[in-house]
Amino acid sequence: MLSDRRKCWRDRCLSVAMLLCLKCTFCPSLSGVYEEHNGTSRTAGMNGSGPSRLVDPLEDPLPGVGTYEDFNTIDWVREKSKDRDRHREITNKSRQSTVALLHSISDAFSGWLLMLLVGLMSGALAGGIDISAHWMTDVKGGLCLRGFWFNHEHCCWLSNETTFQERDRCPQWQSWAELITGKSEGPFAYIVNYLMYIFWALMFSFLAVILVRAFAPYACGSGIPEIKTILSGFIIRGYLGKWTLIIKTITLVLAVSSGLSLGKEGPLVHVACCCANILCHLFTKYRKNEAKRREVLSAAAAVGVSVAFGAPIGGVLFSLEEVSYYFPLKTLWRSFFAALVAAFTLRSINPFGNSRLVLFYVEFHTPWHLVELAPFILLGIFGGLWGALFIKANIAWCRLRKTTCLGHYPVIEVLVVAALTALLSYPNSYTRMSGSELISELFNDCSLLDSSQLCGYKQVTNTSDTAGPGLYTALWQLALALVFKMMITVITFGMKVPSGLFIPSMAVGAIAGRLLGVGMEQLAYYNHDAVIFKGWCSQGADCITPGLYAMVGAAACLGGVTRMTVSLVVIMFELTGGLEYIVPLMAATMTSKWVADAFGREGIYEAHIRLNGYPFLEPKEEFEHSSLAVDVMRPRRMDPTLAVLTQEGMTVGEVESTHFSGFPVVVSSESQRLVGFVLRRDLLISIDNARKRQDGIVSASQVVFTEHTPPLPPDAPPPLRLRCIMDLSPFTVTDHTPMDITVDIFRKLGLRQCLVTHNGRLLGIITKKDILKHMAQMANRDPDSILFN
Amino acid sequence: MLSDRRKCWRDRCLSVAMLLCLKCTFCPSLSGVYEEHNGTSRTAGMNGSGPSRLVDPLEDPLPGVGTYEDFNTIDWVREKSKDRDRHREITNKSRQSTVALLHSISDAFSGWLLMLLVGLMSGALAGGIDISAHWMTDVKGGLCLRGFWFNHEHCCWLSNETTFQERDRCPQWQSWAELITGKSEGPFAYIVNYLMYIFWALMFSFLAVILVRAFAPYACGSGIPEIKTILSGFIIRGYLGKWTLIIKTITLVLAVSSGLSLGKEGPLVHVACCCANILCHLFTKYRKNEAKRREVLSAAAAVGVSVAFGAPIGGVLFSLEEVSYYFPLKTLWRSFFAALVAAFTLRSINPFGNSRLVLFYVEFHTPWHLVELAPFILLGIFGGLWGALFIKANIAWCRLRKTTCLGHYPVIEVLVVAALTALLSYPNSYTRMSGSELISELFNDCSLLDSSQLCGYKQVTNTSDTAGPGLYTALWQLALALVFKMMITVITFGMKVPSGLFIPSMAVGAIAGRLLGVGMEQLAYYNHDAVIFKGWCSQGADCITPGLYAMVGAAACLGGVTRMTVSLVVIMFELTGGLEYIVPLMAATMTSKWVADAFGREGIYEAHIRLNGYPFLEPKEEFEHSSLAVDVMRPRRMDPTLAVLTQEGMTVGEVESTHFSGFPVVVSSESQRLVGFVLRRDLLISIDNARKRQDGIVSASQVVFTEHTPPLPPDAPPPLRLRCIMDLSPFTVTDHTPMDITVDIFRKLGLRQCLVTHNGRLLGIITKKDILKHMAQMANRDPDSILFN
Repeated sequence: MLSDRRKCWRDRCLSVAMLLCLKCTFCPSLSGVYEEHNGTSRTAGMNGSGPSRLVDPLEDPLPGVGTYEDFNTIDWVREKSKDRDRHREITNKSRQSTVALLHSISDAFSGWLLMLLVGLMSGALAGGIDISAHWMTDVKGGLCLRGFWFNHEHCCWLSNETTFQERDRCPQWQSWAELITGKSEGPFAYIVNYLMYIFWALMFSFLAVILVRAFAPYACGSGIPEIKTILSGFIIRGYLGKWTLIIKTITLVLAVSSGLSLGKEGPLVHVACCCANILCHLFTKYRKNEAKRREVLSAAAAVGVSVAFGAPIGGVLFSLEEVSYYFPLKTLWRSFFAALVAAFTLRSINPFGNSRLVLFYVEFHTPWHLVELAPFILLGIFGGLWGALFIKANIAWCRLRKTTCLGHYPVIEVLVVAALTALLSYPNSYTRMSGSELISELFNDCSLLDSSQLCGYKQVTNTSDTAGPGLYTALWQLALALVFKMMITVITFGMKVPSGLFIPSMAVGAIAGRLLGVGMEQLAYYNHDAVIFKGWCSQGADCITPGLYAMVGAAACLGGVTRMTVSLVVIMFELTGGLEYIVPLMAATMTSKWVADAFGREGIYEAHIRLNGYPFLEPKEEFEHSSLAVDVMRPRRMDPTLAVLTQEGMTVGEVESTHFSGFPVVVSSESQRLVGFVLRRDLLISIDNARKRQDGIVSASQVVFTEHTPPLPPDAPPPLRLRCIMDLSPFTVTDHTPMDITVDIFRKLGLRQCLVTHNGRLLGIITKKDILKHMAQMANRDPDSILFN
Repeated sequence: MLSDRRKCWRDRCLSVAMLLCLKCTFCPSLSGVYEEHNGTSRTAGMNGSGPSRLVDPLEDPLPGVGTYEDFNTIDWVREKSKDRDRHREITNKSRQSTVALLHSISDAFSGWLLMLLVGLMSGALAGGIDISAHWMTDVKGGLCLRGFWFNHEHCCWLSNETTFQERDRCPQWQSWAELITGKSEGPFAYIVNYLMYIFWALMFSFLAVILVRAFAPYACGSGIPEIKTILSGFIIRGYLGKWTLIIKTITLVLAVSSGLSLGKEGPLVHVACCCANILCHLFTKYRKNEAKRREVLSAAAAVGVSVAFGAPIGGVLFSLEEVSYYFPLKTLWRSFFAALVAAFTLRSINPFGNSRLVLFYVEFHTPWHLVELAPFILLGIFGGLWGALFIKANIAWCRLRKTTCLGHYPVIEVLVVAALTALLSYPNSYTRMSGSELISELFNDCSLLDSSQLCGYKQVTNTSDTAGPGLYTALWQLALALVFKMMITVITFGMKVPSGLFIPSMAVGAIAGRLLGVGMEQLAYYNHDAVIFKGWCSQGADCITPGLYAMVGAAACLGGVTRMTVSLVVIMFELTGGLEYIVPLMAATMTSKWVADAFGREGIYEAHIRLNGYPFLEPKEEFEHSSLAVDVMRPRRMDPTLAVLTQEGMTVGEVESTHFSGFPVVVSSESQRLVGFVLRRDLLISIDNARKRQDGIVSASQVVFTEHTPPLPPDAPPPLRLRCIMDLSPFTVTDHTPMDITVDIFRKLGLRQCLVTHNGRLLGIITKKDILKHMAQMANRDPDSILFN
């Protein structure tokens, strides 16, 4: 059969054939045995018969061949091809014995098992983080006499003396002032509590930053920009390692509890990805293949959001829309499974104590009216403006940190910001509470029994509400909280502690939304006869829900900052559970994205990727310029010609003295007709190995890439045959190919490099870095800001 | 600037430069003016200055160039590049004048406007279909005296004499027996009603099939296989045209009302796609670009499911998972918008009269227990087995229809099946009601007031229920209905009337699920002390919900037939609105997919695509064989060499006498060094045009593809320069490229053909059809079953 003769020496046969080929090269006698056994060496090992039984095809032939160095880009095509070869091998074997069949079945299900484990582990960790953060946040205020390990709510739950109205006051829970001075009221007690609050904030943030600095520098930040880069095919060793996991989990609890204006949602995505990466080591399939591992990481990103918000579908869409690069349908289904497992694990742990899956459970009873779309769109405009402003300010601040001496004192920076946050936030009850408590309260609809300030309406009649003094105080406090949150978040995001952006952004939006909502409510109350309210909002009717405005505002601000769209709406929809409010949410998110895009198309994560110079080829944006491949390729017009290897005639010494990371192999330097492509790393490893194992390989030995060894002079040293490490199917484009098409090819196939030809002759090479540099140049940015290969 | 010099004569410059180039070719004097004006003709028209102002760049230069013939595959890369050129043109222009800026803005928003229109139109049509089908289904039973246009439910709503218990009995609604004979009871009346039922069924189905035959043959079937093929880049003219839309809408109502075992969900996707295709003609951007239009069609598929089930998120995921081929993130967001608009349009029409968005609104009150996963998985196995069996049986039947004389009598076939269906379904109340009513009833939880047979429990104590005689009758009827539905659906799906598969599949699953659910319920009732029920199901407690089993069974069967996964779970989740039941649904769907996949990996739509021989390259499945490009390419080993054009030296006559659909252009036939690729269609159109407009072009004229005209003998006729219709960046792979990688390239980039080279020399060509033929051959199928190009 034609299809069965996949040749031994083809380049991409790294997994199976490489071993055989290297053996052919280094041990000619053994290769002779194979040839006799199989008729021809070209079919050897490719159809699962013969030599493949002698060696384990899943083992790398030489340590290092086919792997990548740190800070390098993977070749998706090669990785996926490797996995298909592995899969074909297992399938072919499975027809031969029952053990192999069982192996094949276990291989097929290992993906699901891995997903189950990722879900369980991430769910459990998220539950632990929630519980610890809840307790430690409460410790800043006081201690439970019944046992120091109870948090405020739990402490008072167990108390019999608590009434429903004052659930959170009980004698067992004592503030620090009571514990130290014995007094619970008065200015002195207030000052003691204030100081203790600042003390704990400093303590927690100090611990967090010190742990990050000492054990896992990669544990800082939200992690999403780096995960996006890793998923696009970049290698950052240790970024998803066990130390990062341990330290990020601990410091995340500390950072959240310290009261800094940050959330745990982004870091939870990082934590879930760490879990996935560590668990990948249990399965050969995923340990050895960078592309397969990235599929698992994409699913883990979904798991992270799923546990952060209790929104599994939203999590999957978040991974698809925002984080992932390569997201085949199989991954979609597995992500969904893992996200559900994680959500249910979290629910069994029940960290919020209300048996609800979602972080902010709300139920509104009043439908919205079409007229309300106007304030919703206003909120969208606010969200978009804030998002654009935040990105610009935050990036400017982070650039300052990178370029000035500010960056040399991360511990002091964290301590100063923590002290400032604690100092300013304690007097205002809305900034004193944690971000998620604040959002929860703002989202809430006022019921009659509600004791919160926000529901301080004067009860004029049974149903009609007019703002009372409590509400006015609350509004003032909220306005101050808004300004404070907007300022402090800019300098907090990007510090050397784990810091998520979701909760602070949502808090800003929720405050703005609630303010507008209360405003609308009062407007409707006093103007119920005006044209716009007539017909749907009669006097005294409860027709406007300020909580809904808060929710819409939160979505708008988060959308402005991250530029998420569908996933954001779905997350919000899962929070409320009603299709009713999708339209307001969508109107606000859409407006917010459009407004923010008008000031710059990058979301905060892309902006941070660019700030850090990661080699990330944005899959969402079109390449807008009209360059051709010949404009981007190297060598440039004035440069010396492209360094190539010829398929015969070069010596080991000549090959070793080169210094590029990969070389096209040509028939002859005159014809420049392309034969293949070889990586320097593979070349050096093979030469090194040959020198050790094969007799007579010296610097003067000829390196041969042809199928048959050419005739050599009788006194020449034996040649070194390296055809098997050559990529025989390098990607080529012609010099006239428009760059938009070239960029599309790079993105869709996940290429690392591509050769440029003109009328069949080799002209040059384009790497991913060349493209990124060209794009930077086109956008009038410094092309040398792209740091890595 | 390097990037600005995109050369005039490059091949993909179809939108702008083609006109100029053709002008250069045909009117040398005019081209001279351009060159003087712009310095060099190579920059002309590409940077938006100069000649682009003279002509409308959005107009095709020659009618036909850059378009496709019917039953051909589009070149995604070329189409997308065309659109990027267009976009770049508009962006460049927008900097010059306010009008152009407005044009640019309106162009950017035209996509959203189109989505809005698609949503509105599809929602309105779906509402109309729902209302008409409801009324016509009721007409089979009787008429409303108050006015013949009222359906049964509406008729009795208006009546004051109806009690809540007997909502559907009122004197205004008269059965045919009452109308004709005046009697409403007795065997005679029964027979009259029976006959009238059969009469109407025959009448409706006859009308449906006649209309389809006479006006729009494409209106038959579900349409999803064809839409999948169209979305993958195939052209079927008229398949989404206005006649198809009109006839499909009318005949869908007729077919559904005739009582045949079919649903309206698949055809609704087709209807939505027709709406989208027709509305595309309003916008140049979408009218002229096949790739952009397919983005809109992907969104329309989401709209179809959104209106069918009232599940916008599920619809988007359905489009993503099941139907679409190229689904960029921008389309995701727009699909979601359109799906929401359509869902809300439908809700304002309120066809179900309950102000609910979803088709089967259910609310269960009892949580499920872990033990119940066992029966849920059983349902999954049943669903998988039934799915596999159904696909095999239906394909066998359809093949029979294709190959024997059965296919020559579609009208008689439809009439026979309709008569059979009516005859057998009338006596059984569960088959007499429409598919969606049946599913609705099966999903429903029994409340105390429920009068349906399915809730015929004997009330022993206040809460405990044991099966009464009503329930036993219902169970028997359901079992018979199950067998009947399973049989009749096999022969119904694929007839020449619009027929969806969702409702019949779900009905089969729901019946099986309900039967199992009632069985479990009785088991728990009589064995509440057994080990498996102890602890969670005490005596008399209402711990098992048969409606939930029906829902799980419906999902399992639909999953087995279509192999949908995430989208199915999300649709079901949107139907119930509770995250609670996702786990049972997922367990069943997963089992069902695995079981069904064991018997064959194709879903029903893929099976029909293969049956019909559409050129569809399945994006989900990996290419499993170890062939190389050289094994697949043409010419094969024994064939004559590849037909090529040389870049100079060939005459018009020689070029015209060729008969392949495209040709590589090479430097010379000796060197076989590739220059570009040219399509025969474009060649012929250009030559034809040149003969008409350009003096001296005769059959002996030389065709020149080079940049500069080579020196010609003085007496030679003027040459015909055709470089501008040549694709200067054809895709190439080397002969050693494994086919799995080649297939990946074809899929991801949407190629139509790819050239094969060896050491820089052209060897052969691989087209999409070659790949499909090779895959058919590998799977031991007839490679000639792939019909089209």
